[in-house]
Amino acid sequence: MIKNINKKAVVLISGGMDSALCFGIAKNEGYEVCALHINYGQRTINREKKAFNDICDFYKIKEILCSDIQYLSDIGGSSLVDDSIEISIANLESKEIPTSYVPFRNANILSIAVSWAEVLSADAIFIGAMEEDSSGYPDCREDFFKAFEIMTNLGTKPETKIKIITPLIHLTKKEVVQKSIELNVPLHLTWSCYQNEDKACGVCDSCALRLRGFEMAGETDPIEYE
Amino acid sequence: MIKNINKKAVVLISGGMDSALCFGIAKNEGYEVCALHINYGQRTINREKKAFNDICDFYKIKEILCSDIQYLSDIGGSSLVDDSIEISIANLESKEIPTSYVPFRNANILSIAVSWAEVLSADAIFIGAMEEDSSGYPDCREDFFKAFEIMTNLGTKPETKIKIITPLIHLTKKEVVQKSIELNVPLHLTWSCYQNEDKACGVCDSCALRLRGFEMAGETDPIEYE
Repeated sequence: MIKNINKKAVVLISGGMDSALCFGIAKNEGYEVCALHINYGQRTINREKKAFNDICDFYKIKEILCSDIQYLSDIGGSSLVDDSIEISIANLESKEIPTSYVPFRNANILSIAVSWAEVLSADAIFIGAMEEDSSGYPDCREDFFKAFEIMTNLGTKPETKIKIITPLIHLTKKEVVQKSIELNVPLHLTWSCYQNEDKACGVCDSCALRLRGFEMAGETDPIEYE
Repeated sequence: MIKNINKKAVVLISGGMDSALCFGIAKNEGYEVCALHINYGQRTINREKKAFNDICDFYKIKEILCSDIQYLSDIGGSSLVDDSIEISIANLESKEIPTSYVPFRNANILSIAVSWAEVLSADAIFIGAMEEDSSGYPDCREDFFKAFEIMTNLGTKPETKIKIITPLIHLTKKEVVQKSIELNVPLHLTWSCYQNEDKACGVCDSCALRLRGFEMAGETDPIEYE
């Protein structure tokens, strides 16, 4: 039985593996999916945009919005948007917040999603954040998303009721790979590397997490590494 | 005694009367003020920017950031950013949310302020929202700001502690005028009109609220009306 027929969801798609799975899950649950991509001045902006477009084509999405929040680059404070800060080589055992943390990025992104969702009369926003197997970013915690949902429903019209859905929040990267394969998510179209746009570097936080996920799932990553 | 010496605050300044007072209050409380202005594709963008610059000059502010969130125009849904929606003539007795409501604008604006505040290691964000004597926007309610503060401190680094301060939340426009005069806030430099850029229209929501405030305070508005 399809549960959410006639319901609409805004899904945040970076172009990475997690958001692609999020997309697959929203579709699988019956939502009409509207795709939102955010350019925040990240280094691999063109490659991510290509991945986003490829994934939207794959799922034949009609409602698409790309928003530019270049101001996060002006604010700086992260190696993802500020060339003067070096991208840290992954240390997956560290409890430190890595230099790639973009201050309060997810709140900025979700606020845009809520503005759009309110205009579209959408019922939900999907975001592919992971708490347990992520890089330790504070804005990837389940408590943050719950507080965001409460704030959202206090700050929008009385008739607007928006759920913030984080289907990956307790998954490991291994489970993301497994579930993506199960739902036929086009992993070959996704892009995760923070550093390169042609072949993935394999050593940044994002590549390291991705590769570990494939390894633990006993699967081969279909994208090319340098 | 000055209370907040060595504390830094990001103050949101639209260029209007409320945010100018907010600025005056933050200065008066001893904060080092950093001024954030947001361009969201509103109709009177140039006039508001001029008011912002004039107010920053008046207070000799050094840390200034102007951010562009043009995407709110792309999303639409408000007469302030969408020329196909007519600006409603003020009806200050109505309980309806007016067409000038920009969906979830304050959450978008505050998220930028938090990103900047985290990079600046600021202690507080000031926003001049008013619950009781505003246009009934859902994102101007005190409950919304309280929920936003909770969400903020869950979504930023452990060492980041940011207060969301809304000093005008329970003021009427009359009291804004009175308090501004008391604190020597440069009301002649402010701009409130949603419609015009040369002389204020006097009939949009924002003009009507402003004029009523001056009238009830028994003061004369120093700006020109058509």
